[in-house]
Amino acid sequence: MTILEEYKPMFYPATIAVIGASKNQRKLGYHCLTSLVKSGFKGKIYPVNPNLSEVYGFKVYPSVRDIPDKVDLAVIVVPRHIVPSLIKECAEKSVKGIILITAGFKEAEDDVGAKLQKEIAALASKFKIKVIGPNTFGIVNLHMDLDASFTPEFSLMEKGNISLISQSGGFCHLIASLSLKEGGGFSKIIGLGNRCNVDFADMLEYLGEDPETKVIAMFIEGVDDARRLFEVTSYVARKKPIVAYKAGRFKTSDEASRSHTGSLAGRYDLYVAAFKQSCVITVNSSEEMLDVAKAFSMCPLPEGKRVAVLSAQAGLGMTTCDFCEENGLEIAVFTEKTIQRIKELLPPLSMRTNPVDMGPAWYNWETSRKVIETVSIDKNVDALLLLAAYASANEPLVREVAEPLKALARQKPVVTCFPAPRGIWLKEKKELESAGVPVYPTPERASKALAKLVEYAESLKAKQKFVVD
Amino acid sequence: MTILEEYKPMFYPATIAVIGASKNQRKLGYHCLTSLVKSGFKGKIYPVNPNLSEVYGFKVYPSVRDIPDKVDLAVIVVPRHIVPSLIKECAEKSVKGIILITAGFKEAEDDVGAKLQKEIAALASKFKIKVIGPNTFGIVNLHMDLDASFTPEFSLMEKGNISLISQSGGFCHLIASLSLKEGGGFSKIIGLGNRCNVDFADMLEYLGEDPETKVIAMFIEGVDDARRLFEVTSYVARKKPIVAYKAGRFKTSDEASRSHTGSLAGRYDLYVAAFKQSCVITVNSSEEMLDVAKAFSMCPLPEGKRVAVLSAQAGLGMTTCDFCEENGLEIAVFTEKTIQRIKELLPPLSMRTNPVDMGPAWYNWETSRKVIETVSIDKNVDALLLLAAYASANEPLVREVAEPLKALARQKPVVTCFPAPRGIWLKEKKELESAGVPVYPTPERASKALAKLVEYAESLKAKQKFVVD
Repeated sequence: MTILEEYKPMFYPATIAVIGASKNQRKLGYHCLTSLVKSGFKGKIYPVNPNLSEVYGFKVYPSVRDIPDKVDLAVIVVPRHIVPSLIKECAEKSVKGIILITAGFKEAEDDVGAKLQKEIAALASKFKIKVIGPNTFGIVNLHMDLDASFTPEFSLMEKGNISLISQSGGFCHLIASLSLKEGGGFSKIIGLGNRCNVDFADMLEYLGEDPETKVIAMFIEGVDDARRLFEVTSYVARKKPIVAYKAGRFKTSDEASRSHTGSLAGRYDLYVAAFKQSCVITVNSSEEMLDVAKAFSMCPLPEGKRVAVLSAQAGLGMTTCDFCEENGLEIAVFTEKTIQRIKELLPPLSMRTNPVDMGPAWYNWETSRKVIETVSIDKNVDALLLLAAYASANEPLVREVAEPLKALARQKPVVTCFPAPRGIWLKEKKELESAGVPVYPTPERASKALAKLVEYAESLKAKQKFVVD
Repeated sequence: MTILEEYKPMFYPATIAVIGASKNQRKLGYHCLTSLVKSGFKGKIYPVNPNLSEVYGFKVYPSVRDIPDKVDLAVIVVPRHIVPSLIKECAEKSVKGIILITAGFKEAEDDVGAKLQKEIAALASKFKIKVIGPNTFGIVNLHMDLDASFTPEFSLMEKGNISLISQSGGFCHLIASLSLKEGGGFSKIIGLGNRCNVDFADMLEYLGEDPETKVIAMFIEGVDDARRLFEVTSYVARKKPIVAYKAGRFKTSDEASRSHTGSLAGRYDLYVAAFKQSCVITVNSSEEMLDVAKAFSMCPLPEGKRVAVLSAQAGLGMTTCDFCEENGLEIAVFTEKTIQRIKELLPPLSMRTNPVDMGPAWYNWETSRKVIETVSIDKNVDALLLLAAYASANEPLVREVAEPLKALARQKPVVTCFPAPRGIWLKEKKELESAGVPVYPTPERASKALAKLVEYAESLKAKQKFVVD
């Protein structure tokens, strides 16, 4: 059985049982069922609860065994002490995957939780059932309209090719909210929680093969089997970019990790070194994770690190250059031909080398287009950064330069920043992102995202070189 | 004459002439007039243009001398070569302040611009007229409904107590767009451009006295008189926090600075050292500038650096602790009494020390409130960080904990992060910010903003100690 087949019942189920479904809004069982209903899931939903007969128009079954159909996936959200018996019932029913939302296991202060977790891990392994969790918010597969989590709003997210694996459900919620505001299309979102028998390495292997995933983002607190994690990353990261954010860099959060999902965070520097060794891109904040994932999701990899910076306002060009240089990019030296052409196009009022201040061409969109086209074909340019803050006077700009940007984006990374008041340039930004041109809220974030594209491309090259040598 | 009186005609004019007013949307003269009209400016507006008789229902005067009224402020937006003669006309008319939007002076590649700038500087000084610019986007005073810039959207910004001084107009546009999305109320926004006879030091002195300014943010590319700048910052920063973002940290942008507003950026490390010496808070990105300015704008200064971290999801608490420790904060050690009380309030399912995971209290808002109150009165706690990512199950949370947060915010900094899908918790966030509780989009940014509050409080204390010693 391939790994895709192995996890098919989990991510592409035809039938789902919600064990612990509820009508009570103060219970997660209510929210789990609501998520499945609201996400528009096309398969069959079977609520299970011995004390309920009907919910959302569905017949409720007293036990999973009473469901008159096969069950691919079970979402379990019940008090912890009855979880083991429910796993046995699922096994009898030949359930293939379980999302175990219930908390209070290895992360609990008492001994009961750790003991219970051992028990369910043993059962899951005995019956060969994949269990995600316990202590998870759930999973989401936007391509399947599947929100098997306790938060219905995940189904508002844009479909795309970024998949997220996270130990923390809160972090998944954070990234979801950010992406709803700042763009970025997602495929799978997986809350690992305490990791009973499905860990980072398993999900990396799965997503590495998943045709609907182009970029893998992961939020790690700590893992038990670091060796296996790095074995897997080292081959998956050569096929698909992996963007990793590691918590527990400092003392307090390292200790907190144990009581969150039951793992010690471990030494941060060792993780970073191992990630670097296996071409995994490390990021240091939630926004940076989304920014970098978006860049990988949309852009081709750059051939080199020489960047052209074009800006409608010189100040934005300057901060961009600072961030480019700080993050290892080079400000490209244009060929003589490019320089001559730009001098013909722009008046001698501002910067005409790299960075190029296109300010003097504000009312002449044809000129802005020509500058972009000129720079695009310069052989010394590996990537383009374009920045323009909205002013009523330059309102047509983004629309007018979209075509050359989209054309270039098929060959080289084109990364942009178009800050504007709410509601302005929205349609234009969306169209650009659909055509492979990511748009960021600030010049600094645009530059850093591009730098990570370059870092990945260079780390792949270094690996290939090593193999050839 | 006090400095407040000196700049009154600039920031609180009763009458404004727009020299170069236009009906042509492809001219900045059109946008400048539109800004004044749309901002709801209560004073008189006099458009000037010899080739126009009427615009926006206003009579247009052929020259500033023909205006049948005194003129406090002139906004000049005409081709550069006629600027000197217009300054003479303004002098004849006893105009007190000029916003010189026209570009193409010291920053231009040709020699004409630099010569012209010398000429207008001499004229301005001879006639004792304060000139902001040339090569500026203008100024904004939200408390006066005055948008004397070429972008009408500045008047959409929230009124508040943050003032921004920037060499780059593009940067002002960027900050405006960010604040429209992320909050933060502004007082004055000043584009210095090439700085003819009004420089950073002058505006710092002015804003230092301005009762409508509590925090000063500044974006610097480079200055000609660094000694005077640091003399002024060193006494202004003791009265009001100054948040500085310096461009030109690296080679390319340093060189670009000359051709943008005609100044060499100078050595970044020297600036940072001098800023530190004078209690100026340095930031490294546009978002960080807004975040930190918001914190100073809303919060009291902390007594110390010991932080309580409360989160609705453990993962957010961990990333927060990482950022706190990385930025010099301490995770407070609670008193025995606090620890006991929290153990009574929360079940033994997750972290009950600092950081506190309030997850198990999700459906019991009374408990969340009690945890906040318990931590609030702990003598080992100097500031509070509260984080909660939206999930449908915790929707009432922000509303339910608002009161204890607001109460505490009158004594200690309370900094929060409530990521949520668009439209959710908007009203609650706005109310919290009005009550002195800033809300940030991510845990990382919340932590960094709080760290800068502490940095400023500690640098002030160090200075006082030095004086006493």
